[in-house]
Amino acid sequence: MTFELLNNKRIPYICAPLTGKNREEILFELETIIPMQPDLIEWRVDFFKEIHKTKHVLSIAEEISTVSDMPLLFTIRSEKEGGESISLSEDGKVNLLSEVCKNSAVDMIDFEVSNDRDHIKALRKISKENNKKLILSYHNFDHTPVNPEILKRVFEAEFYEADIAKVAVMPENKEDVLRLLEVTQEADEVLDIPVVTMSMGRIGSMSRMMGWAYGSIITFGVGVQSSAPGQVPIDRLRQMIEMTQETVGEWE
Amino acid sequence: MTFELLNNKRIPYICAPLTGKNREEILFELETIIPMQPDLIEWRVDFFKEIHKTKHVLSIAEEISTVSDMPLLFTIRSEKEGGESISLSEDGKVNLLSEVCKNSAVDMIDFEVSNDRDHIKALRKISKENNKKLILSYHNFDHTPVNPEILKRVFEAEFYEADIAKVAVMPENKEDVLRLLEVTQEADEVLDIPVVTMSMGRIGSMSRMMGWAYGSIITFGVGVQSSAPGQVPIDRLRQMIEMTQETVGEWE
Repeated sequence: MTFELLNNKRIPYICAPLTGKNREEILFELETIIPMQPDLIEWRVDFFKEIHKTKHVLSIAEEISTVSDMPLLFTIRSEKEGGESISLSEDGKVNLLSEVCKNSAVDMIDFEVSNDRDHIKALRKISKENNKKLILSYHNFDHTPVNPEILKRVFEAEFYEADIAKVAVMPENKEDVLRLLEVTQEADEVLDIPVVTMSMGRIGSMSRMMGWAYGSIITFGVGVQSSAPGQVPIDRLRQMIEMTQETVGEWE
Repeated sequence: MTFELLNNKRIPYICAPLTGKNREEILFELETIIPMQPDLIEWRVDFFKEIHKTKHVLSIAEEISTVSDMPLLFTIRSEKEGGESISLSEDGKVNLLSEVCKNSAVDMIDFEVSNDRDHIKALRKISKENNKKLILSYHNFDHTPVNPEILKRVFEAEFYEADIAKVAVMPENKEDVLRLLEVTQEADEVLDIPVVTMSMGRIGSMSRMMGWAYGSIITFGVGVQSSAPGQVPIDRLRQMIEMTQETVGEWE
């Protein structure tokens, strides 16, 4: 499935996370990552120490958009979702995401699909009004739930009218990696929105290189610092994907 | 699972087929393949036009063993097993394989596990007496049977005391490729002998690069000419495997 933000590009899109603690680190990371030519940038704002200062956050988002012409994804992954410990309450997070939708050049925001229903609806409304895409994501850092459980999460994302449904789960064994690829294809066949999936950790990293073949449209690669377990450096990731695509074709 | 013929080598072993029609083509292929450093050579004798001349066959096997110090696998794949049209009867095939066991430097022979039971038993006996390894293989160029059907074939191979059980099946869709990897791991866990598997064709070629992670100890790569659909050139195959192994580790 194609995705209009990133048109005319063969999937998977490679996304590089920014994980700096402060403005200097973030801009240094950005400058380092730009020559690696990822397709989009994810600012992982939970790593940013001044996340509670909305103006500061908006100004850095603006700087990132000015320095790079890549689409920018804005993500606050809270500690229970596998992110960093942050000083914002859940309401504070939603407020910041709303501000970002209204007052920044950010292209997309990410929010956890298991969050409060009213929060999700409010963010869907405000993101739509401001022409921002919404990724609703499901994370499980403990294990890979059974396929229907994973499908339920992506169906929820679609129900909330997300633009993309994302799933990141931890494998407990090698079969779980195959199963994540299998459920990716099931989701891709049934959903009207594109899906982004990954099996995390070392053994899951294969899914970051091959998920595209089963329908996952974005893969996250390490620019300067990884933002989740099992991410592969961008250059390596691209090389593996290109070599596989040359060999097996585009599969469609 | 390790395999003593090819000790002290990290799996998967890369096997290059020789598919020449005559002595000159075979030796030219061999000279071309040696610098590519595969781990073993498979002579696909069904491509050889003078397969009915036993002395000629034995003399070329000898030449191959003299020119290369790589282990040599001797395979006659009949037309119904996905090989070439050959001038030998089934009895003629068994006779030639017996002669090869008794009078050549060949290290391993391959025989289809669905062949006549008495033929298999005779070849197992004569190969053991002459310190040759026996691969019993199952091919399906039409589809990927359900897992129990595939397991039945590898269990048969073990029942006949094969040294290796091999499975090569055609995927009808992308799920079949995942399923082949899944059944490879099931087989590897249950069998006392090593397993070699592949999902054939273009979409199956991914299994040639990743099957090792699920327990397949040999992968076939193209040296000069491919001997089955979906084979990847040796250099590319090795590069993909090494890059994946560096990324995901050895998985054990």
